[in-house]
Amino acid sequence: MDLNTINSMSYEQFLDTFGNIIERCPLVTAAIWSQQPFASVTELENRVFDFIESLPLAGKEGILRCHPDLAGRDLMRGTLTDESQNEQAQAGLTLLSAKEKETLGFLNLQYKAKFGFPFVICAKMSDKNKIMQELGSRLQNEQSEELQKGIAEVKKICHLRICDLFLNEKLPTKL
Amino acid sequence: MDLNTINSMSYEQFLDTFGNIIERCPLVTAAIWSQQPFASVTELENRVFDFIESLPLAGKEGILRCHPDLAGRDLMRGTLTDESQNEQAQAGLTLLSAKEKETLGFLNLQYKAKFGFPFVICAKMSDKNKIMQELGSRLQNEQSEELQKGIAEVKKICHLRICDLFLNEKLPTKL
Repeated sequence: MDLNTINSMSYEQFLDTFGNIIERCPLVTAAIWSQQPFASVTELENRVFDFIESLPLAGKEGILRCHPDLAGRDLMRGTLTDESQNEQAQAGLTLLSAKEKETLGFLNLQYKAKFGFPFVICAKMSDKNKIMQELGSRLQNEQSEELQKGIAEVKKICHLRICDLFLNEKLPTKL
Repeated sequence: MDLNTINSMSYEQFLDTFGNIIERCPLVTAAIWSQQPFASVTELENRVFDFIESLPLAGKEGILRCHPDLAGRDLMRGTLTDESQNEQAQAGLTLLSAKEKETLGFLNLQYKAKFGFPFVICAKMSDKNKIMQELGSRLQNEQSEELQKGIAEVKKICHLRICDLFLNEKLPTKL
């Protein structure tokens, strides 16, 4: 993958390619396009992270709220984004037992009721058992701590989505 | 439509209902949810506008870049959001002659090349002839002026989308 290709993309091509590196927030990708040329893919990623950090608190909460529950409504309805579907499947969340679904659903509800945003974790770096353990433990935190932890996970997810785009050459061949 | 209903919505219900009042930017709706209770629908709308104004310049550009071209690629491909499809149809943009399509396509390209974001106008408050005239005229402006004008149009679009939700009772009956 060629950095020149990325640096010569129109904002539309840029959005087609990187529009979902932050789940359901193409605004973020769209915002950093004008910082072309990027010296490296890491710089592109850092600009995304800088933009997120530049948002008011409500904006960071907004980003978390654009994420689906793990093994939640969108997974049941088949309305997850491709990226999220893939990540949740890899963590074993598409093959939960009835009991596991119930437990996770209950923990998700408790988490949302306490914090006002969903539990966000980089599922690809985890598995269903670790996720449930982590969810139970993070439920004990303060809201401000969880906002920070959630955003840190959003960045990990973003990093892996960018890696995936490169490794699997999911970039357009014709620009 | 009952304000209590809105003020008792979970963030998921709020996003299901108001998620596209800013085109393809559910982040904005998600960000203001925690400002419940709203004293009026106008207050809800004003919180959306305040949030947009609180964004760094790049974020405002990002919002504009999430908007489709008028009579552009998404209309041709059938990938417009329902709201945008409806607005473009009402302005007569789905029934352009070959010559009109060519002219509008050329002006859109020029606009995007000059400003780095698409020409955004509240199509419902206009029609195809006015739109083409306005596009030609706004092409002469400076970038900073167009960013401001574009965001002002985003707010008009948002206002009409909220009105439409109320007038047509497109709100969920079961919450």
